[in-house]
Amino acid sequence: MRIVELSGGVGGARLARGLAALAQVDLTIVVNVGDDAENHGLAICPDLDTVVYTLAGEAGPHGWGRRDDTFIFNEELARFGVDNRFRLGDRDLALKLFRTRELEGGQPLSKVTATIASRFGIEPTVLPATDDRLRTMVRIPGGWVTFQEYFVERRHEDEVLELRFEGGMEARPAPGVVEAIASADLIVIGPSNPPLSIWPILAVDGVRAAIASHARVSAVSPLIGGKPIKGPADRVMQSLGLPAGNRGVVAAYEGLIDRLAIDESDRDDAGDLEGVVDVLITDIMIKEQAAATSLAATLVKQ
Amino acid sequence: MRIVELSGGVGGARLARGLAALAQVDLTIVVNVGDDAENHGLAICPDLDTVVYTLAGEAGPHGWGRRDDTFIFNEELARFGVDNRFRLGDRDLALKLFRTRELEGGQPLSKVTATIASRFGIEPTVLPATDDRLRTMVRIPGGWVTFQEYFVERRHEDEVLELRFEGGMEARPAPGVVEAIASADLIVIGPSNPPLSIWPILAVDGVRAAIASHARVSAVSPLIGGKPIKGPADRVMQSLGLPAGNRGVVAAYEGLIDRLAIDESDRDDAGDLEGVVDVLITDIMIKEQAAATSLAATLVKQ
Repeated sequence: MRIVELSGGVGGARLARGLAALAQVDLTIVVNVGDDAENHGLAICPDLDTVVYTLAGEAGPHGWGRRDDTFIFNEELARFGVDNRFRLGDRDLALKLFRTRELEGGQPLSKVTATIASRFGIEPTVLPATDDRLRTMVRIPGGWVTFQEYFVERRHEDEVLELRFEGGMEARPAPGVVEAIASADLIVIGPSNPPLSIWPILAVDGVRAAIASHARVSAVSPLIGGKPIKGPADRVMQSLGLPAGNRGVVAAYEGLIDRLAIDESDRDDAGDLEGVVDVLITDIMIKEQAAATSLAATLVKQ
Repeated sequence: MRIVELSGGVGGARLARGLAALAQVDLTIVVNVGDDAENHGLAICPDLDTVVYTLAGEAGPHGWGRRDDTFIFNEELARFGVDNRFRLGDRDLALKLFRTRELEGGQPLSKVTATIASRFGIEPTVLPATDDRLRTMVRIPGGWVTFQEYFVERRHEDEVLELRFEGGMEARPAPGVVEAIASADLIVIGPSNPPLSIWPILAVDGVRAAIASHARVSAVSPLIGGKPIKGPADRVMQSLGLPAGNRGVVAAYEGLIDRLAIDESDRDDAGDLEGVVDVLITDIMIKEQAAATSLAATLVKQ
């Protein structure tokens, strides 16, 4: 069975690991690059790295970064007055530096990502949504800021008034993205922040249309009891004018999904949603690998 | 008393720390940049860093790199098939990255070095010989290679047939270098490899002439019993056609020095050298700070 998952960071990555654990699944993960940034001259791709590390069983304790990493380099930066709020682990740094050098050498991000994935022995195909430059810009009450400034430096405390996907209009899908979507038996939108993590993928020319024309697109809600497991999804959705809770998730994916997986604890939402989309009521809390695999199996079987 | 030391890496750095420990000494260290390289896109200045770390009491156990450093990043590079023979410590990496960014931002190396030195609370003035690009090229039986290839990758095992200081003809002294030499009461050439560490400094336009016209220039021999404490100085000097032992050191600095400090164990060399230069017989083994300070005091007093 061919599955394509659209993924942001931690939640999407965990679901990807669940899907990858299923027998006879040919998995492609199309990953958000809107959070990408340059930090200390290094090419930072937070979501791609989280997906790779998670699939390799090498993700850090909070879902991001490398397991068993150290932060000697990052601490030492403070001596030079260098902003080190974006915490780069020593082990993680090797990947960042390898990628930076390869990109500077002219390799496209999708190729570099494939090399990195192979170095971690990962079987699924991990694709950036685009090889072109695409940057999520966030308008907060003080004006437009980069995603990293909003998320890391300002700790996603500001109200998000508007999003813009810089380069989105010109960005072409990375080789294989549209082909994987077109030939997939099932598309899964991971439990990622819809506006901040999934919309940038959909902003890439041709991706939204490819998803919209697909017959089977399931999304996994990033909300349980109206709140995300982590991050500011509920606040961002609200300030962007989306309805609260799972209705907001459906609205964020209007015209794209035919099914939404919601948590058992939110079964009361189902009545409200049925008629717009199919509702799959299951356990969507996937902090552990077993839960992720179980959710993946449920998505595939039903 | 104003002193200028010309220095390569470990030996020169240790003497610098000894000189810095003397009361009422105004010390400027002019440091070799011929070993500088780009590694993983980072600006590597081995001798400048050894001098800074040594003066800060932060040098690694073998004289180079940072004390108490870890090599997590360096080890992880192997996963990506990246050449990691030039070992970069995690703590050390922060300095390298800071320098790289500052240079890319248009700061000259001398300014960046001053900033780094101040961040380590170092009082002496540490100057690169030049802000311009100067690279020591080494001809080995297989052809011309960079200093780093000769020294690190090929472990200085090849015979050195010829040296070339690429950029040396055009390189201008860094601001303050010639001024410091001209106004110094004493010039000390540290116990560094004469051809590999000191000649590149002398290759910078105007530096050789400034040293040659100075009345008091002492060199400290890098050899004890004809052998260096570390490194290939004796073999390099031999293959470049210089006489063996301390006669070779004097020949390497012909027309520049008026005095050579040699080790007590080499006092038999004195007869051979007197008449060409003054000879100061003392303990020149300076692995420990106390010995370095003692040698520095002897150089200054006599």
